[in-house]
Amino acid sequence: MQELTNLTRLSLNQATIDSWDARAAIEGCLRTGIPSIGLWRDKVAKTGLAETARIVRESGIKVSSLCRGGWFPAATAAERQARIDDNRRAIEEAAELQTAVLVLVCGPAPDRDMQAAREMVEDALIQLLPYARKHNIALGIEPLHPMYAGDRSVITSLAEANQLVEKLDDANLGVIIDAFHVWWDSSVYEQIARASGHILGFHVSDWLVPLPDVLLGRGMMGDGIIELRKLRHAVDTAGYHGPIEVEIFNQSIWNMPADQVLDLVSKRFLAHV
Amino acid sequence: MQELTNLTRLSLNQATIDSWDARAAIEGCLRTGIPSIGLWRDKVAKTGLAETARIVRESGIKVSSLCRGGWFPAATAAERQARIDDNRRAIEEAAELQTAVLVLVCGPAPDRDMQAAREMVEDALIQLLPYARKHNIALGIEPLHPMYAGDRSVITSLAEANQLVEKLDDANLGVIIDAFHVWWDSSVYEQIARASGHILGFHVSDWLVPLPDVLLGRGMMGDGIIELRKLRHAVDTAGYHGPIEVEIFNQSIWNMPADQVLDLVSKRFLAHV
Ligand SMILES: [Zn+2]
Ligand SMILES: [Zn+2]
Repeated sequence: MQELTNLTRLSLNQATIDSWDARAAIEGCLRTGIPSIGLWRDKVAKTGLAETARIVRESGIKVSSLCRGGWFPAATAAERQARIDDNRRAIEEAAELQTAVLVLVCGPAPDRDMQAAREMVEDALIQLLPYARKHNIALGIEPLHPMYAGDRSVITSLAEANQLVEKLDDANLGVIIDAFHVWWDSSVYEQIARASGHILGFHVSDWLVPLPDVLLGRGMMGDGIIELRKLRHAVDTAGYHGPIEVEIFNQSIWNMPADQVLDLVSKRFLAHV
Repeated sequence: MQELTNLTRLSLNQATIDSWDARAAIEGCLRTGIPSIGLWRDKVAKTGLAETARIVRESGIKVSSLCRGGWFPAATAAERQARIDDNRRAIEEAAELQTAVLVLVCGPAPDRDMQAAREMVEDALIQLLPYARKHNIALGIEPLHPMYAGDRSVITSLAEANQLVEKLDDANLGVIIDAFHVWWDSSVYEQIARASGHILGFHVSDWLVPLPDVLLGRGMMGDGIIELRKLRHAVDTAGYHGPIEVEIFNQSIWNMPADQVLDLVSKRFLAHV
């Protein structure tokens, strides 16, 4: 499998450097030759939406995605409507930041009923898609690792995300494939091929053994056991040639000097992705 | 969905009471009216195999399963052979303990190659099945939660376990369905129905939110969010009417007085399973 020979496809997902707001992260990318960034709404809010959009335009940095919309299931109709309204704002923010993709972490069930929660996700998507289309934003369903099924996402496999995308059959809906969330799945290569034509993003990090922490235990590429190059090759073969976001939630990486992290990210990206 | 009205199907998996060897656990079950037990090899070894077999016979307690065989993938042919030899001993132990089922935790990959490791599991099963048949022991593949894919099992979904059972098509091979490992799966009910005819066991505990610990964070039934009764009903509908093992790895439950745990297990079993 061919390696990547340059950083053209590298994107820094802001979650990798917790200490930086949007301005600092964009400046960091400029300084270290990383051409794209995945922004987070809370960090954009710190710098200010209009100001971030201005910095993006002037920097020439490409925004690969905005994280995150979603969190759809809720106990009452009023709460569900409030979440949909918040997602409309996220779509507007994505458009202002000149990205094409809003990443969706779909949210947990408000109670024990997973099936009902999955239907709430579908209902919310049906309501949001016309608004996304109007703003020229694609919604990317990111299936999360099943260990987050209780508190972050009822969408727990690429098969399930693919099925939802096929069912709703909308040009503004697709999937985000995050290696950390899907690597364990015996059908992952089959599901990546099935996602062909609706892959909106590819995220990388690594799975450390033993897992240091459920939330902050993701590894730097090469430090764990995920076959990242094989997965990247499968995603390429499925026709996705867009940015690859490095997204590492890890306390010890957050504790490192940020520019040093960016150097390491760039090196490991070339060596392992 | 109908509730269970008595403890006939309740089995104590020994992992729930870490402090007890096989003798203490069998005596505990007798004392509290729990009719079956799932034994662990290390705890049987503490009491002694022949002595445990004798206590089992005299007690009238039914051994629902022996945990655990498996751990098949390894870097060299010699190591893989050693694991197969150990599984032959586990089959002999299961026969001596008068249980019908050896539970298999299939093991992690020795390196990054999940596909190769899955093939090692299949190869090992093919070698072991004649020996299992000879001893009248059924081998139960227990798919583990995907958060254990790096260090415990390359078999991470019921779909994958079902596929392997269908492929090898052997009357002495089936699956163990553990609610904690499979509850998150959007296809779990479809896969339980597909497992009809080769379900060898059903394990229950609960999924706590947030998850307290990757290894020792399972909850007592009713304390978490798994739809246990719905799953049990699906397993019943698929034709499994055997013992239901309560298997809870949890430090705070290990710290409780053991007889108190057995009382709680019995109450929660009737209330939630
Ligand atoms: Zn991601
Ligand atoms: Zn189990």
